[in-house]
Amino acid sequence: MRQSHLFTKTRKEAPRDEVSRNAQLLIRAGFVHKEMAGVYTYLPLGLRVLNKINTIIREEMDAIGGQEMLLTALQPKETWEASGRWDDAVVDNWFKTSLKNNSPIGLGWTHEEAITRLMTQYINSYKDLPIYAYQIQTKFRNEERAKSGIMRGREFSMKDLYSFSLTQEDLDAFYELAKEAYTKIFTRVGIGEHTFLTFASGGAFSKYSHEFQTLSDAGEDTIYVSRENGIAINKEVLNDEVLSDLGLKREALEEQTSIEVGNIFKLGTRFSDAFGLTYRAEDGEDRPVIMGSYGIGPGRLMGTVVEILSDDKGIVWPQSIAPYAVHLIGLGDQEPAQKIYEQLTAQGIEVLYDDRDARPGEKFADSDLIGIPTRIVVSEKSIAAGGIEVKERASDTVEIMSPETLLEGLSR
Amino acid sequence: MRQSHLFTKTRKEAPRDEVSRNAQLLIRAGFVHKEMAGVYTYLPLGLRVLNKINTIIREEMDAIGGQEMLLTALQPKETWEASGRWDDAVVDNWFKTSLKNNSPIGLGWTHEEAITRLMTQYINSYKDLPIYAYQIQTKFRNEERAKSGIMRGREFSMKDLYSFSLTQEDLDAFYELAKEAYTKIFTRVGIGEHTFLTFASGGAFSKYSHEFQTLSDAGEDTIYVSRENGIAINKEVLNDEVLSDLGLKREALEEQTSIEVGNIFKLGTRFSDAFGLTYRAEDGEDRPVIMGSYGIGPGRLMGTVVEILSDDKGIVWPQSIAPYAVHLIGLGDQEPAQKIYEQLTAQGIEVLYDDRDARPGEKFADSDLIGIPTRIVVSEKSIAAGGIEVKERASDTVEIMSPETLLEGLSR
Repeated sequence: MRQSHLFTKTRKEAPRDEVSRNAQLLIRAGFVHKEMAGVYTYLPLGLRVLNKINTIIREEMDAIGGQEMLLTALQPKETWEASGRWDDAVVDNWFKTSLKNNSPIGLGWTHEEAITRLMTQYINSYKDLPIYAYQIQTKFRNEERAKSGIMRGREFSMKDLYSFSLTQEDLDAFYELAKEAYTKIFTRVGIGEHTFLTFASGGAFSKYSHEFQTLSDAGEDTIYVSRENGIAINKEVLNDEVLSDLGLKREALEEQTSIEVGNIFKLGTRFSDAFGLTYRAEDGEDRPVIMGSYGIGPGRLMGTVVEILSDDKGIVWPQSIAPYAVHLIGLGDQEPAQKIYEQLTAQGIEVLYDDRDARPGEKFADSDLIGIPTRIVVSEKSIAAGGIEVKERASDTVEIMSPETLLEGLSR
Repeated sequence: MRQSHLFTKTRKEAPRDEVSRNAQLLIRAGFVHKEMAGVYTYLPLGLRVLNKINTIIREEMDAIGGQEMLLTALQPKETWEASGRWDDAVVDNWFKTSLKNNSPIGLGWTHEEAITRLMTQYINSYKDLPIYAYQIQTKFRNEERAKSGIMRGREFSMKDLYSFSLTQEDLDAFYELAKEAYTKIFTRVGIGEHTFLTFASGGAFSKYSHEFQTLSDAGEDTIYVSRENGIAINKEVLNDEVLSDLGLKREALEEQTSIEVGNIFKLGTRFSDAFGLTYRAEDGEDRPVIMGSYGIGPGRLMGTVVEILSDDKGIVWPQSIAPYAVHLIGLGDQEPAQKIYEQLTAQGIEVLYDDRDARPGEKFADSDLIGIPTRIVVSEKSIAAGGIEVKERASDTVEIMSPETLLEGLSR
């Protein structure tokens, strides 16, 4: 992509009412645009990052047997009355509206109800199970305050997988698979070493649920981390019983602020009971389906990466989710840079090529702000001297190499 | 994909209140699920078709310089007051709701306002133009009645591209490119020969807009087709002046019912005036940006394909958007079919493999209903006789061939 064609530009300042670091950087670098508090447009660079995160999530969900589908934002009242979650006194972040005939409808803030009702169409016999269905879809939550940028939106994308199993044992086994898949996702997007499996409150069907918490001052949660064991406990459930369950000592734990980047939950029969979702077992008895839910917010993940991996010059994207692999900066006469651009793109390498008529200092500052992992500077002078400047965004070292060495290195 | 793992099943009947043929077939075959009138979940098979349509649309939009982004569903009132389209007396299909602080917000039913406001951040100089930005996003329209299945939803996906040009001439030139791109899209999804460029009402800035209308009794529009010229006129604008403009004679036109599958519109300065979207020209003057908008509903396209290409046994997908390329049906002992399944998938061919323990008649009926273009029947008996049955969904001829010939033919 030629930067002169990209319709976004970097900005010196984010909107004054934007207090979160992730949104400030993402707005200044041209990844997102703020429509209103908690509501962000994804601009071309931002959508590329979001799509790469989504692809990683899809690969890991498909690998554990997930089938992708797409539920709806508009939700009929009746569906939610069945589970007792329609009332604003019970759920305080509904957006509600109505049809022309005055039937009330809500905007889905989660989809346990919708998918459980749907599955009553398709689950009859034990032979139909297990089912693991997921979607990457837009959720709407009427947050009182929305000050965390793209990490807590009023409109945001969510990957939610729901599992439907025959027995508690089957659920437990899939739950462990999902846990591993989640760990892989956080590792692949570059925040693995900062992210801890965290014990959180369960429900009627399991003592604990699990969150994945990423250490960051920008978070809204407080957790107690055992680095030795690679796990953590959410402050909300920290007590002697939990410590004893996990064999941990209070004094060995570090209090940390963190961002909840994922959560997995054993729902048991909470929703299958509400919707009469049963299966005919081999012995001819009807039994309730045992469910679990597994959520990750791709936008929140993107915001988290920005919060914890950026520096004072801008964003530092991991290779796996960077909008482009290479930021090619042409200085002066564009002919040599143009040639490198064509060679790189012909090799299938994703390149943002700064072909703009701008000062070198401006190009470098923009490149640091946008945060593409590898920066390549090409000018007539550098080529004449037999070299191209190559610098990793995360490092200060500039290497000079021949175009041939560069191409060989990148195509590896 | 093994059909025994696919969580959907075919159904004998669609919901009683479902009157449209496209939704009846898509629900019965397990492509979509009806949440309420005009609101449909895309099940795994349906999402595969929708994604293939989206990929075709993206390729054609990217080919004419489109940059993909993603605007928001939640829309602040202020944005729409600027253009005079907030009031329910002006726009009668808003869904509206409000934030916790009682600020009214609407659900975007189109995005001219949002993108024009956004572009005031990025367009300053003539050097910033042209810009062609598009999204594939969910729109919400509070339709009084929603009886056309996935062809007219209250919640539906839309590809909307907006062009921002320096001059009317530049807009005119891009408009012609968009027209060609649209023609390619309709051809690629398999409805090209049924689809006519149709002259429709323009606005303050152009005498006509253009619709792409696909002939079908399921449509809501009436058009007058000149097959000789390959164009049509929407009934709404048919008069002597239009006939004269196009050099057509009334008596040479056929009246037809049709589905509007796309529309392109020269907006001129309607929105740039409302939002003060100007650019500094080379001569130092500030001039308004000249806009155009270009829409296609991917879900409506999918519904249209079902309406016009299905037969009394079920859906007949064109290869380009079929959920799978091959429906492999194993009869009796699954071993021979299993082997073919592995060979086909190893070659990268997308296969739905009916490995279920079901009667042949049921498998054939399901296969016809689901509508995958090529059906392959494998049984111990057929293999022993040296053959595999191959049948195209759209034809009645069954061919017997060796596994080798089949693999060779499919990998072409």
